[in-house]
Amino acid sequence: LRAKPRTQASLAVSADGVSWFLLNASPDIHRQIEGFPALWPRERRDTPIAGILLNNGDMDHCLGLLSLRESQPLKLYATAAVKRGFTEGNSLYRTLERFPGQVTWKILELGRTIRLEAPAGADSGLAVTAVPIPGKRPVHSGPGPDDAEDNVGFLIRDAAAEKTLAYFPAVGLPSHPLVEALGQTDAVFFDGTFWSGDEMATTGVGTAKARDMAHWPLGGPGGSLSFLERLGCRRILTHINNTNPILREDSPERMAVLAEGIEIAEDGWEISL
Amino acid sequence: LRAKPRTQASLAVSADGVSWFLLNASPDIHRQIEGFPALWPRERRDTPIAGILLNNGDMDHCLGLLSLRESQPLKLYATAAVKRGFTEGNSLYRTLERFPGQVTWKILELGRTIRLEAPAGADSGLAVTAVPIPGKRPVHSGPGPDDAEDNVGFLIRDAAAEKTLAYFPAVGLPSHPLVEALGQTDAVFFDGTFWSGDEMATTGVGTAKARDMAHWPLGGPGGSLSFLERLGCRRILTHINNTNPILREDSPERMAVLAEGIEIAEDGWEISL
Repeated sequence: LRAKPRTQASLAVSADGVSWFLLNASPDIHRQIEGFPALWPRERRDTPIAGILLNNGDMDHCLGLLSLRESQPLKLYATAAVKRGFTEGNSLYRTLERFPGQVTWKILELGRTIRLEAPAGADSGLAVTAVPIPGKRPVHSGPGPDDAEDNVGFLIRDAAAEKTLAYFPAVGLPSHPLVEALGQTDAVFFDGTFWSGDEMATTGVGTAKARDMAHWPLGGPGGSLSFLERLGCRRILTHINNTNPILREDSPERMAVLAEGIEIAEDGWEISL
Repeated sequence: LRAKPRTQASLAVSADGVSWFLLNASPDIHRQIEGFPALWPRERRDTPIAGILLNNGDMDHCLGLLSLRESQPLKLYATAAVKRGFTEGNSLYRTLERFPGQVTWKILELGRTIRLEAPAGADSGLAVTAVPIPGKRPVHSGPGPDDAEDNVGFLIRDAAAEKTLAYFPAVGLPSHPLVEALGQTDAVFFDGTFWSGDEMATTGVGTAKARDMAHWPLGGPGGSLSFLERLGCRRILTHINNTNPILREDSPERMAVLAEGIEIAEDGWEISL
């Protein structure tokens, strides 16, 4: 199989190269930090990571938080629903409550822009807007009513540079807020989980459909690729499942994506807007 | 600083080279599996990992289980107390309850030997005995009475080869069961967390004492090194905290350990008894 190994989907963003914000905390967060010296502690446990944004409550976006259970305070940005899904009824969360102020939650309201704080409340130069996106409750939250706050995409704005980055790693369906949000960005990291709706079954690794897992497949009529083709900004696929044929260097699906000028994310990429 | 980076403490054992058992599931479990081809799935998701043993409920021993939430059934060996500490009140555990039989728990009773099962209940050639060792409840379980089942060491016996491996990564204090257990082994992986009782404070990374964290320090009068010196078997230090000076290639503490013929574990070691 001709394919490069990849860690799980995550991004670090910064306006000033000093304060960094992680977009999701995947289980392999330590390995990802090791791979990017700008995130290394400057001395002892003084971390350049000023905050972590969670776009939904899935394990592959949150589990890494529990590996960060050290003496370093942590600032987390998430909707109230995502916070509840991770903190309520979760005994393991106590490892992040070892001392008062270990974790500070900054609650994201849908459509409202707030600034991302550098240490000591200083300005990081970045602001975030949470865009509601059709998604689903995390598996560990069990059955229950969907909440518009369960899943969001992020618009991250550097006002001084007049640049906006979009991070939408989980998009269940097309929607008006999605179209509107991506019409005003300079680059988007977009949900590349699946190529087709039934590839978990056809590759023999499961039975769930892309639809059940709230990931809009790329290929076929009505696939997200036809939506992405019409965007004028830089477009990068991320959160790519290991069943997705675009990971194979020699697949026709990969060729179809690249031919549209759409990029397929790899570990270690650095991008300046 | 002259020191090799290491992943977190974990071991894989096998009698036949076909069925493997992991001793603890650290948060970096995927990286560790990647580093050892014998653990790679043979086809699709057919894993050589026949079971995982948990010696206590600490996050660094259990969190990796939540990264394994796939369609593969999982057999876990732990005491009833360790099982309770990880499953009760832990909503994240639902990711391991996606289908009936996803996880099978094999409950370890103190001092009683049970065989480790190969797939389909076949004999792996290995048996395990859980030895009660002074330890502590995991942080996420909150305050409560100590239970002798909170922390154990493992004696793993290959009857055909007449060899016994001991895995004791968390030893709070010396005790009679410890002395007795280690008198009958061919090799022991032993708690090398701390050199001194107050090194978290002296290195500036925390305030907890080794005693509070239930790790018997190696150095000084009454340190575990003087106990290990008297054992006739192969002795390997594991679970070494990043504050421990034995990690520095040029430290006198490391020289003192090596001079006694005691080894300091590194990633990737393979050992045959």
